[in-house]
Amino acid sequence: MKLYGHPLSTCTRKVLMTAGEKAMSIELVALDLLGGAHKQPEHLARHPFGVIPVLDDDGFVLYESRAIVRYLDARGAGASLVPAAPHDRARMDQWLSVDQSYVAPHLRALVGQRIVRKHQGLDADVTATDEAERALAQAFAAIDRALDAERYLAGASFSLADISLMPYVAGLTSVEAAHTIADLRHVQRWWREVSTRPAWLRATA
Amino acid sequence: MKLYGHPLSTCTRKVLMTAGEKAMSIELVALDLLGGAHKQPEHLARHPFGVIPVLDDDGFVLYESRAIVRYLDARGAGASLVPAAPHDRARMDQWLSVDQSYVAPHLRALVGQRIVRKHQGLDADVTATDEAERALAQAFAAIDRALDAERYLAGASFSLADISLMPYVAGLTSVEAAHTIADLRHVQRWWREVSTRPAWLRATA
Repeated sequence: MKLYGHPLSTCTRKVLMTAGEKAMSIELVALDLLGGAHKQPEHLARHPFGVIPVLDDDGFVLYESRAIVRYLDARGAGASLVPAAPHDRARMDQWLSVDQSYVAPHLRALVGQRIVRKHQGLDADVTATDEAERALAQAFAAIDRALDAERYLAGASFSLADISLMPYVAGLTSVEAAHTIADLRHVQRWWREVSTRPAWLRATA
Repeated sequence: MKLYGHPLSTCTRKVLMTAGEKAMSIELVALDLLGGAHKQPEHLARHPFGVIPVLDDDGFVLYESRAIVRYLDARGAGASLVPAAPHDRARMDQWLSVDQSYVAPHLRALVGQRIVRKHQGLDADVTATDEAERALAQAFAAIDRALDAERYLAGASFSLADISLMPYVAGLTSVEAAHTIADLRHVQRWWREVSTRPAWLRATA
């Protein structure tokens, strides 16, 4: 099983962590993103939107990280990372959708403003960074309330929803936005717990 | 079972259609979006991001349309709208993620530019509309290739991935972007078929 991605990519990390939790062996094929390897025909044949990661499971090619982690969970050994109870499962699906629509785009905006533009010698657009930080603060406030009521996002069990959110929390520091969660004690409690899982430590080594 | 939403909302429509396919009765509570009902405390208590739809199933409150349709599929009667075969199921998850990340945001941008701004007496920003149309054309080209290989997005069976995409296809006309799919014969073949399903006709009546 191969994964075309990059060790620093949030979506690559959630797949590597899922593979680790499920005791699956997966070979990371790191693409040269600075060199534009993800926009070359060879990669576009795997992923028509020219992003990462892409899974190749013995010829079955699958893209979109949240689809890949669901597939790995069903295919791998060990405890399921999808809750069996219908309400918990629905909650997991809800939070997977929340991180896709209300967290990831704003972190990506901050990467563009504070990393890519800096690399190009340009200043960040303050209107854009303010808006992204405000949106992240709103999203994490909702997450904090959920983690006040439950140990994990989908209830009593660690699930794909926790895994999917983790790389974004880890990425806040590199875009100077860790302050958006500094005062959220339930998010902090959750992060202290999940970020010590062996699969996370291996996925981010 | 109640759904807080709006009959013209894409995400409300995909939930109503799923309920129809599963022969479930659901009461639509239409919010006054122009009056800002979705930003009032009563709705924010249901949905912290202040959007629609939100399901209330006898006190179990769930938001995010793709989570709601998965929940209804598991809860309702009739044929499953989630394929049983692992590869088909993974493909469904992939396309659900594609419409969320590569279709919906660009349609929303066109609604903002061509409907909301017109309503405010403002011209559309041509750079923004060009970019949104280019992105939609790219997404639908990938979808067309998938529908060349298979009858439906997830393979031989109609699934939640088809349902989730349908309201965006229907919405292209109202944002003057139907031309992005005019020459895509597999998308057109698929649309002729799925848009005559009784559940779609009822959801959009």
